[in-house]
Amino acid sequence: MPHLAPAVLVTGAAGFIGSHLVRAILDDERYQDFQIIAFDDLSGGFKENIPSHERVVFVQGDISNANDVAELYSKWPVRYVFHLAAYAAEGLSHFIRRFNYQNNLIGSVNLINESVKAGVQYFVFTSSIAVYGKGQVPMTEATVPHPEDPYGIGKLAVELDLKSAADMFGLKSTVFRPHNVYGEYQNIGDRYRNVVGIFMNRMMQGLPLPIFGDGSQQRAFTYVADIIRPMLSAPFVQEAEGEAFNIGASVPVSVRELVDVVASEFGGKPEIQFLAARNEVHLAWSDHSKADRVFGASTETPLAVGIRQMARWAKQVGYRKSAAFENIEIEQGLPLSWRSPNND
Amino acid sequence: MPHLAPAVLVTGAAGFIGSHLVRAILDDERYQDFQIIAFDDLSGGFKENIPSHERVVFVQGDISNANDVAELYSKWPVRYVFHLAAYAAEGLSHFIRRFNYQNNLIGSVNLINESVKAGVQYFVFTSSIAVYGKGQVPMTEATVPHPEDPYGIGKLAVELDLKSAADMFGLKSTVFRPHNVYGEYQNIGDRYRNVVGIFMNRMMQGLPLPIFGDGSQQRAFTYVADIIRPMLSAPFVQEAEGEAFNIGASVPVSVRELVDVVASEFGGKPEIQFLAARNEVHLAWSDHSKADRVFGASTETPLAVGIRQMARWAKQVGYRKSAAFENIEIEQGLPLSWRSPNND
Repeated sequence: MPHLAPAVLVTGAAGFIGSHLVRAILDDERYQDFQIIAFDDLSGGFKENIPSHERVVFVQGDISNANDVAELYSKWPVRYVFHLAAYAAEGLSHFIRRFNYQNNLIGSVNLINESVKAGVQYFVFTSSIAVYGKGQVPMTEATVPHPEDPYGIGKLAVELDLKSAADMFGLKSTVFRPHNVYGEYQNIGDRYRNVVGIFMNRMMQGLPLPIFGDGSQQRAFTYVADIIRPMLSAPFVQEAEGEAFNIGASVPVSVRELVDVVASEFGGKPEIQFLAARNEVHLAWSDHSKADRVFGASTETPLAVGIRQMARWAKQVGYRKSAAFENIEIEQGLPLSWRSPNND
Repeated sequence: MPHLAPAVLVTGAAGFIGSHLVRAILDDERYQDFQIIAFDDLSGGFKENIPSHERVVFVQGDISNANDVAELYSKWPVRYVFHLAAYAAEGLSHFIRRFNYQNNLIGSVNLINESVKAGVQYFVFTSSIAVYGKGQVPMTEATVPHPEDPYGIGKLAVELDLKSAADMFGLKSTVFRPHNVYGEYQNIGDRYRNVVGIFMNRMMQGLPLPIFGDGSQQRAFTYVADIIRPMLSAPFVQEAEGEAFNIGASVPVSVRELVDVVASEFGGKPEIQFLAARNEVHLAWSDHSKADRVFGASTETPLAVGIRQMARWAKQVGYRKSAAFENIEIEQGLPLSWRSPNND
C-alpha cells in the first residue's frame, strides 16, 4: 500500500520546467506534508530529471489517456495540481494539429475532469504567451488573446475551460504564461524548440546554428529558476485565484544576439545557417508587472549568467541525438530543416 | 467505381441543419455539377433525413475518427466543405468536456487537415453564438469572444484554427454563428436541446414542459430555412472570406412566451414543470447586420409561422423516444432532469 499522504501532482515532471518545480516543491515548507506525484509519459522528458527522494513518486502515464489519468486520481489523494505536461513545439503545431490538441487540450481536460471529481484544492496551469498571437509588445494580461497557431489555440482553450470549471464546479486555478524559458534539464535534443537548447546542442557537435529569417526576431529569454516562485505561491495568494499572469524576463534579445551569448560559453565562432523565415510571431515579450504586484518583484537572472549555468550543465550531460517528429500530419510548407530525420 | 465529379462535402448531413443544406445544394445552380457527399455517423441524425437523389451519396463515418476522414478524402475529390457535424448540447457540455472537445474540436481538425492536403477550395464552418459567452446583447461580430462553456470554447478553438490554417496554408473559409435554430428534421427526441423540439416532443406525449428557472431567459428562435442562403453563398462572395457572421432571427422571445406559441399548435394547455435555474446565458440574441450587408437582407420567418410548419412535420413523424446521454463524465451539478434514463 502506498503511503496516502495528500499529494501534489506535477504533470510533465520529467520535463524541463516540471523537474525544476518538483525540486522546488521539495524545498518549500508549504508543501512539506505532501507526497509529490511526478507524472510523465517520458515522451520529451527524462526519468533522471526527477530527483530521487522518499516523498517523490514517479508515475509513468499519458495525460491524453483518460484511463491513465483516472487511475492516477483513484490511487492518490491529489490536493494540488501543477499541470506542465504538453507538447510545446509552437512552430511545429501547424503541421501536427490533431496531435497538438489531443495532447495539450484533451490531456488537460482529462486532468480538469478528475480534479473536479476529486475536489482538488488548486490547479496551476502553465499556459504560454502564444495565446496572445501577434499583438502589441509588451503583451499585458489586458491584451485580448488571439492565438495564431494550434499550440496557442490549445492553450487558450484550456485557460477558458479552467474558467468554466471554476464557475460551474468551483475548481480554483491560476494560469501562468511564461515565455522562452531556458535552463538546466531542458531537452536540448528537441530539434523543434527552443532556440537556446538547439544552439547549445549543435555547438557541442560543431554544427552550424540555424536561424529562421534574418534573426532579428526578438524574445525575452527567461531563466527557469525565475518563474518557479510565483507558480508555487499561487495556491496561497488570494489575489491569484482565477487570474492569468505573464511571467518571465523583461529584456528582449534578438536571436542573432543570442548566438553570441551562447557561442561565448562554448568557444569558437559558430557558423550560421540562415533559413527561410517561417510563420512566427516576430516580436514576443511581455509585461509582468501584474505578477510582480501579486507575488512580489521577481528575480531576473541576466541572460549571460543563465546561459553560463545552463552551458555548464549541458557540457556535463553532452549533446543529445535529435529525433524527428514521426507523425507529421501536413507536409505542405514544413520547413526543410524539420523534414529530414537525419540532419543532425 | 464511383462517379468522380467534384464533390461538396456536408458533414452532419443526416442532422437537422445539414439535411436542409443538402436539399438546398441540390436546388442551387452554383452546385449543379457537384456530387454531394452526405457524411454522418448517425449518432444524432437520421438517414431518412437525407434526400434520395442520384447526386447525393451517403457515407457513414465519424469526423473524430481520423481514418474515417482520411478515407473519405481519398475516395472523393472534395472541393467545398460545409461542416455541420457536432454534438451541440451546450448546457450538457459542462458534464461531457472530453467528449465535447473530441467530437467538436478534434473532429473539425481532422477535416481541416484533410482539406489543406486536398487543396479544398472553400470551407464553411457552423459555429455558434456560444462563442460570445455572457456579453452585452445584441452580440455583434465585434464583441470579443469569451465562451463560458466547453461547447462554446470548442467552437471558438475551431474558428481560430481555421484562421490559422488560412494564414499558413491558404485554406479559405467562412464562419457562421447561428443561434437557436428550429424546424423540420430537428431531432425532437434529443432531451438536451433545443427547447422547441423538447416542447413539441413532450406536448405530443402529454408530458409537462420543463423550464429552467422562471422562463424569462430570452432567445431569438430562428427558423432553419432563414439561415441556409448565406451559408450556400459564402464561397462565392469575396467579402465573406475569412469572416465570421452572426445569422438568425432578430426578435428575442422568452422561453415562457415560447410555451404559448408551441401549445397553440398542439391544442390543450400544457403543464409547466419549473426546474432549478441552470448555469446558462440569460439573454442571447445577436445583431446580424454584417450578414445582411454582405449577403443581402435575410428573410425572417415569423415565429408563429415557423412553429406551425415544424409542428405540422412533427405531428406527421410523431414523438421520438428520448435517450439519455450515456457517458457523463462529471455527475456533480448535473440537472436532475438530465439524470434519469427513463423520465420520458
